[in-house]
Amino acid sequence: MKTVFDTLGGDKGCANVVRGALRSLDKHDDLSVVFVGDENEINGVLKEEGRLGDSRIEVVHAPEVVTGEDRPTDAIRLKKDSSMIRSISILRTDESVNALVSTGATGTLTAAATLRIGRIRGIRRPALCPILPTMNGGIVGICDSGANVDVTPEMLLQFACLGSVYLETAFGIERPRVALLNVGTESEKGDGLRKAAYPLLKEEKTINFVGNMESRDLLSGKYDLIVCDGFSGNVLAKSTEGAAMLLLKRIKSDIMKKTTYKVGAMFLKKMFMEEKEFMNYQNYGGSVLLGCEKIIVKGHGSSNEKAVEVCSEQAYRMYKNGLLDKVSERAESCLASEEEK
Amino acid sequence: MKTVFDTLGGDKGCANVVRGALRSLDKHDDLSVVFVGDENEINGVLKEEGRLGDSRIEVVHAPEVVTGEDRPTDAIRLKKDSSMIRSISILRTDESVNALVSTGATGTLTAAATLRIGRIRGIRRPALCPILPTMNGGIVGICDSGANVDVTPEMLLQFACLGSVYLETAFGIERPRVALLNVGTESEKGDGLRKAAYPLLKEEKTINFVGNMESRDLLSGKYDLIVCDGFSGNVLAKSTEGAAMLLLKRIKSDIMKKTTYKVGAMFLKKMFMEEKEFMNYQNYGGSVLLGCEKIIVKGHGSSNEKAVEVCSEQAYRMYKNGLLDKVSERAESCLASEEEK
Repeated sequence: MKTVFDTLGGDKGCANVVRGALRSLDKHDDLSVVFVGDENEINGVLKEEGRLGDSRIEVVHAPEVVTGEDRPTDAIRLKKDSSMIRSISILRTDESVNALVSTGATGTLTAAATLRIGRIRGIRRPALCPILPTMNGGIVGICDSGANVDVTPEMLLQFACLGSVYLETAFGIERPRVALLNVGTESEKGDGLRKAAYPLLKEEKTINFVGNMESRDLLSGKYDLIVCDGFSGNVLAKSTEGAAMLLLKRIKSDIMKKTTYKVGAMFLKKMFMEEKEFMNYQNYGGSVLLGCEKIIVKGHGSSNEKAVEVCSEQAYRMYKNGLLDKVSERAESCLASEEEK
Repeated sequence: MKTVFDTLGGDKGCANVVRGALRSLDKHDDLSVVFVGDENEINGVLKEEGRLGDSRIEVVHAPEVVTGEDRPTDAIRLKKDSSMIRSISILRTDESVNALVSTGATGTLTAAATLRIGRIRGIRRPALCPILPTMNGGIVGICDSGANVDVTPEMLLQFACLGSVYLETAFGIERPRVALLNVGTESEKGDGLRKAAYPLLKEEKTINFVGNMESRDLLSGKYDLIVCDGFSGNVLAKSTEGAAMLLLKRIKSDIMKKTTYKVGAMFLKKMFMEEKEFMNYQNYGGSVLLGCEKIIVKGHGSSNEKAVEVCSEQAYRMYKNGLLDKVSERAESCLASEEEK
């Protein structure tokens, strides 16, 4: 198993990515890594960590950075020496490389991967699937969360199949409960897209479709996978994250206003820290771009060392559990009807 | 000013609606009300409150209830004696009635109002606009939040105009900062709908368009009005509410786990209660159905007395400040180009 790490583009810099990857490397004898980015910077970190010359570590110099401001098409065309585009090239051309972890710009990563890395046969469009924690201690996936903003009912069916295989393979969830994001739970709810997708999902035997879900129930623990177009999936994931983080921030600032509050907060410090960690969905893994012929994990831009480690572990687990083969197999059954059209 | 109250359909029952309305009635000498629902039940509450025979109060018997399970088209056709459909009829036919407050099923209310109450000239489709609190103590409106799930770029422009007039008239916000809900802040982001709506919003001189907004910034206080299709608006409003409420619930259950936490929470009790009230967006008013020829306020299903009072006050304020005339005026300029098509 060999994973390439795009070391630039995250908010916390190269050292953070390298150290997170090393943590993961130390766990598995059969893992090796390629660090792509500013060679001097990477080697500096490796020296500090006493890992220069490690036979399981390669370094590739590509110091340019793709940012969120770059238009994906421009970045792909003009920033060939960027860590992200070079990482994609390595993933594409080096057959010994199985996976990519990046904390860089989602738009360019998704576009470059879709264009450059082949899709698994039968898959129309790769989809992004982030993982969020649920209130009862479980997780829930959202597919698609932004790779495809304009979608068809058939694509929603594919997202359901892709996400189901992913949750089974990477998290051992058997027969994930799949729900369609909608404006109400009744079967006839929604816009034209949802109304057309509902019967397709209901008829598909290889998935465990449980009906429509209202967005307020996302974290309820009643569902394992939420199927949606990339636009509303993006709104769902980011507003949930945003609301929780802002509420914690408000509580923090409230506490500073009164001495009695400060005293109370001392007793609750551990609880608040645990809640903050709980809501920090980096801890649960990156967003996986499903449907490509290689494993691609997009970590949050603000990923810390631990979050990078989690992304790497996630990639390792998916590879070892044969995610790509399983998606191919499923594509034969679940998605076959699709291809016939 | 006369307001009709649909007393059934909310989670907390008729008495709650009647008492909330009475609170508002007591504030304004020029306000009168019509209570529609179960006559006996309404009169029972009025008797308890010592208000039987009050010349400013009318009671209309229509005891059937429209629920969230009813299909809107069926409810409109078959439940003519329901409090909601009868309230709409009164609003339509009685020229002395200016406004309707209901805490019942949103789908049926929206559909019945759209069908039965005329639209203001130039308005294609009425839109729902709920109000949420922002982190810095302000408010933000979301238009549309679910009345229209399939929309055009021109409709998004109308939502921007309608919402702007509403925030100016009901809340005194001058030149509301309007943002388009999108998957990123850059101008070229989004699906076909957003890409087509962006230039329309940018060119429209009567609104203060400030660009795209990512959903995580909804509560940041940087925007006064978020423009979106009803599908993603519904996702945005409900996931924000859901995440905040679930987080508070988790904190509450965490606190019960340890004695030290319980002690700390005693010091913070007031703060937690304030935060809960802060996040409870009922306190900021109901969702207004904008674009109809009369004022329609949809309160949250779980509205308590205070929330009903707030909805009634909101309707009163909009009427007194001439919302409907202002929408008509604006329709002449902002929406004129629309009608020409």
